[in-house]
Amino acid sequence: MALEFDLIESYFLPLSEGFASVDVGIGDDGAVLNVPEKHQLVVVTDTLVEGVHFPVETLAYDIAWKALAVNLSDLAAMGAEPACYSLALTLPNYDAIWLQKFSEGLRDLSTQFKIPLVGGDTTKGPLTITVTAQGWVPNQQAVLRSGAQEGNLVCVTNTLGEGALGLKLALAPEKERVLPFLSKQEKVRALNALNRPVPQLAISTDLRGLASSAIDVSDGLLADLAHMLKQSSRALLKQDGGGRNSNASSATVLGAEIELTQLPLSSGVLRYIEQTKDWALPLSGGDDYQLCLTVSPKNMTQLMARLNSKGVSLSVIGKVVATHPGITCLNQGVVHNIGGGEKGYSHFQ
Amino acid sequence: MALEFDLIESYFLPLSEGFASVDVGIGDDGAVLNVPEKHQLVVVTDTLVEGVHFPVETLAYDIAWKALAVNLSDLAAMGAEPACYSLALTLPNYDAIWLQKFSEGLRDLSTQFKIPLVGGDTTKGPLTITVTAQGWVPNQQAVLRSGAQEGNLVCVTNTLGEGALGLKLALAPEKERVLPFLSKQEKVRALNALNRPVPQLAISTDLRGLASSAIDVSDGLLADLAHMLKQSSRALLKQDGGGRNSNASSATVLGAEIELTQLPLSSGVLRYIEQTKDWALPLSGGDDYQLCLTVSPKNMTQLMARLNSKGVSLSVIGKVVATHPGITCLNQGVVHNIGGGEKGYSHFQ
Repeated sequence: MALEFDLIESYFLPLSEGFASVDVGIGDDGAVLNVPEKHQLVVVTDTLVEGVHFPVETLAYDIAWKALAVNLSDLAAMGAEPACYSLALTLPNYDAIWLQKFSEGLRDLSTQFKIPLVGGDTTKGPLTITVTAQGWVPNQQAVLRSGAQEGNLVCVTNTLGEGALGLKLALAPEKERVLPFLSKQEKVRALNALNRPVPQLAISTDLRGLASSAIDVSDGLLADLAHMLKQSSRALLKQDGGGRNSNASSATVLGAEIELTQLPLSSGVLRYIEQTKDWALPLSGGDDYQLCLTVSPKNMTQLMARLNSKGVSLSVIGKVVATHPGITCLNQGVVHNIGGGEKGYSHFQ
Repeated sequence: MALEFDLIESYFLPLSEGFASVDVGIGDDGAVLNVPEKHQLVVVTDTLVEGVHFPVETLAYDIAWKALAVNLSDLAAMGAEPACYSLALTLPNYDAIWLQKFSEGLRDLSTQFKIPLVGGDTTKGPLTITVTAQGWVPNQQAVLRSGAQEGNLVCVTNTLGEGALGLKLALAPEKERVLPFLSKQEKVRALNALNRPVPQLAISTDLRGLASSAIDVSDGLLADLAHMLKQSSRALLKQDGGGRNSNASSATVLGAEIELTQLPLSSGVLRYIEQTKDWALPLSGGDDYQLCLTVSPKNMTQLMARLNSKGVSLSVIGKVVATHPGITCLNQGVVHNIGGGEKGYSHFQ
């Protein structure tokens, strides 16, 4: 893009300046960052495409915020502290006002978590944003998806379903009239959760040594918990010698039981479920960017205290089991088949 | 993209396996990499868009190769050793054969330089590839664009103009008949330079302490050398106290003189210039992925010996001057105005 250098100088250069960890910022072939001693590098990357990952009408500010937030959310789920990020921005055309707002979205979130922009590329095409973020964890202290154990408690931070509720509102042709049982405040809260999710970076370091596994809930609780159970089962099979012993294999395939009445829900989502019986919203709606954790019962008190001290609530919603694979949803202890669809959700795998 | 997980497992997972430096590879929220002691992190990123950065007919293998190569070329220009890379791939549709070939292109180049793929994202849309690569340099030993000094020699590795010649061939409607004065071998060589550029990573560590500045020639020698002179001038102005003294400022704005007869050219490019008088090809054609260096005369012998021992030639093509800004092209010592255009190229800024 011919305007690349002007673009970078005007809007993005200020986002790379004033950080002690950045030895060389934007403007060279690459950026050079100082490395904290005895740490490992964590690398995450995520792409957002207009019309796929966010509605076409989304504000430039919110697009930028979300593109960075979803990556910082991945760093948080690893127990990492953020180091820096780079941006590949594909734009359909040059729009100075749009770019100004976009850079403000990046600025506000990156300032909050003190993370410099260290490079980028701009190209012409349908609006697409790829962020790659780097972080640091002390050696061997990353929190992985693969550490869940039988008997661990399944927990989530804050509330679920808020972003998915926001998406329903954002996509409604007549925003004023949709979901009339929600208060104006509940609608604002849901749209805010959709457009400006807050990555749980404030508590990422608190997870180390206490959570046995973690994942950020982007695709929906059931899908993401299933990823975690799959990786943890694989890890257990590996420990058991590659699963060559068929009895050992079947014994180490992990599942989970989730109690729906324990799901942490905002008043808006609760009201939505009361009205629609649509449990798929908090279970599979996605766009939560909360953390789903597995925690040994002995660590729960300490972890909860740490998180609460930072204003983050942690709810126990179920447990990891080794009796059957997949996720069983219970409603007051009774197996609950959620929604229609081919598979339903009583048993999600 | 619904097929994301299948895609990743089939084609990309093998590219992340078998590297000692990778503690956690693809499959978690992020990858975890071991960090060599007393090193800094180098981050580079580049996006290729079909029809903009490579012709529409380009083979999947070559697209993958080039997308990775242009990033490794940036790492080489920093004097870095490669650590890992991540991939954001936007695809118009699912094509198993195309993906197979694409992954082979990545595999062959990444195997050559022992660099693991550590993450990625696949989305649906016009073919676009963003690679972000990470590398390591010993503390404070990165080779920057900003270190050029008056009296330094301007050098380039291997030959220039080969990729641009390849592009002329690739874009010609009747490939057989275009540029009939080139031999078949010369055409093959040019197309190969365009489609499978070899990043100069083999010599990246040799630059440390000997080259005062470096840039990889992607936009063309004149444009990239101008970037380097601009950054180096800024650095000098900063040293002189922010350029508050106007005499000091004007004295520290660097330019360069380039002697065209010293440009290292292959037989094909040489023949092309003889026939067309089009010096813009090696000067501004781009797609070279050679390194342009500035070197103090006292370091030349040692640097040349190091590079030659690895089969890389280094040609002195001019010098850095402080008498006038911009780049002056000379032909046997006489100022040479190259090509038409509004600006010409006798004085490129």
